[in-house]
Amino acid sequence: MEYTELTIEGRNAVIEAFRSGKTIDKLYVLDGCQDGPIITIKREAKKQDCMVKYVAKERLDQMSETGKHQGVIATIAAYEYAEVEDILNAAKEKGEAPFIVLLDGIEDPHNLGAIIRTSYLAGAHGVIIPKNRAVGLTATVAKTSAGALNYLPVAKVTNLTKTIEDLKKEGLWFVCADMKGNAMYQQNLTGAIGLVIGSEGDGVSRLVREKCDYQVSIPMNGELDSLNASVAAGVLAYEIVRQRLNLSK
Amino acid sequence: MEYTELTIEGRNAVIEAFRSGKTIDKLYVLDGCQDGPIITIKREAKKQDCMVKYVAKERLDQMSETGKHQGVIATIAAYEYAEVEDILNAAKEKGEAPFIVLLDGIEDPHNLGAIIRTSYLAGAHGVIIPKNRAVGLTATVAKTSAGALNYLPVAKVTNLTKTIEDLKKEGLWFVCADMKGNAMYQQNLTGAIGLVIGSEGDGVSRLVREKCDYQVSIPMNGELDSLNASVAAGVLAYEIVRQRLNLSK
Repeated sequence: MEYTELTIEGRNAVIEAFRSGKTIDKLYVLDGCQDGPIITIKREAKKQDCMVKYVAKERLDQMSETGKHQGVIATIAAYEYAEVEDILNAAKEKGEAPFIVLLDGIEDPHNLGAIIRTSYLAGAHGVIIPKNRAVGLTATVAKTSAGALNYLPVAKVTNLTKTIEDLKKEGLWFVCADMKGNAMYQQNLTGAIGLVIGSEGDGVSRLVREKCDYQVSIPMNGELDSLNASVAAGVLAYEIVRQRLNLSK
Repeated sequence: MEYTELTIEGRNAVIEAFRSGKTIDKLYVLDGCQDGPIITIKREAKKQDCMVKYVAKERLDQMSETGKHQGVIATIAAYEYAEVEDILNAAKEKGEAPFIVLLDGIEDPHNLGAIIRTSYLAGAHGVIIPKNRAVGLTATVAKTSAGALNYLPVAKVTNLTKTIEDLKKEGLWFVCADMKGNAMYQQNLTGAIGLVIGSEGDGVSRLVREKCDYQVSIPMNGELDSLNASVAAGVLAYEIVRQRLNLSK
């Protein structure tokens, strides 16, 4: 997965970037600069937990590509997404039945990064995330993935239920976690499979759940409702690994 | 687990608290205060990623218990730790073979919180953490544990290897994760068990590993060396759950 660092320069451009929901990695502000637009920018940065660095004019001049930074430069990380087809091809190349992890609205970049890392180590061929209501591939995701983002294709799709339908035509079965499902140990999870992980707060959405062939549960003791999303993804992915290994014996 | 919020007031006391490594939740600073000691305190706060709130004098006066806040008040969370014996008793009360999770130097409070949550949901009877080189029960840990800290006893011990020796006398077997161990699916993990999870960077330390009866590995595909600590803990804990459930069939 290719990584590029982009810089956004000038007050309006930076404000616009924040407002459009771009994930800004770092914000460089001219030290001592205190006027209205800069205060607005710093407020937006605070809202998004973006790191602010106060630097001298010489530093900004050096970083600037346009020469017109107006005292503020933001950097954003941009990763290139793969296509769903790339994921299927990765499985084909390895001569393995496809194993894809689909994330229905993960919002925490640490969770997304950890799930990408887990998916890769568990031998999945790719991860699919939705365009809306979900975090994309930010620098935090890349960092938490501990390098896995460089190896594992991640595709971004407009409509997750549509993608599930398309992949069913390719022979995949879909399974999602749901408290009411069979215990995961009792469900056959071998073969070409899509594992659907729900969002931190709401789990798997109704429309997506209805498209799944099976619902499986992770046995839980006690009063709380669920595991952390990245832990649940790990436990389910490794149950798939266990069953795949058993088959090959 | 009981929770108390403590306040630390005054410049020296707050600087001292930071320097002694106490985890401070929130720092309240008198708005506009800019002198040397306050700048030092803010620098320490930044190092520790501690949230700083700038408030009016009236607010500080209200919060103050000593009346001598000198423009700065820090709050720390304090949880009461359990004893190792409490954990064994919890297992006895449920009529179950003890299942304890031991953490050899987890430093990230999010990981600790997630592991406490996972341990609870997987049916472990308690978690043991070492006093040194590890994060304690801070407010972040409590939050990430999503309430599990209220139900699951967490004990803090001076010497993890000594505790392992003591627990062996109580009939526990100890298993830790190590890349060179048997695949976890092939190792019998039923009965009275202690699961040892290593630190994020270095894994399980040599002395602790040597005390373990078994080393098991999580099968990994690919170039990276390991799963996130909380995901690894989840995958291993649930392999124990699976084997325990199988036995009871």
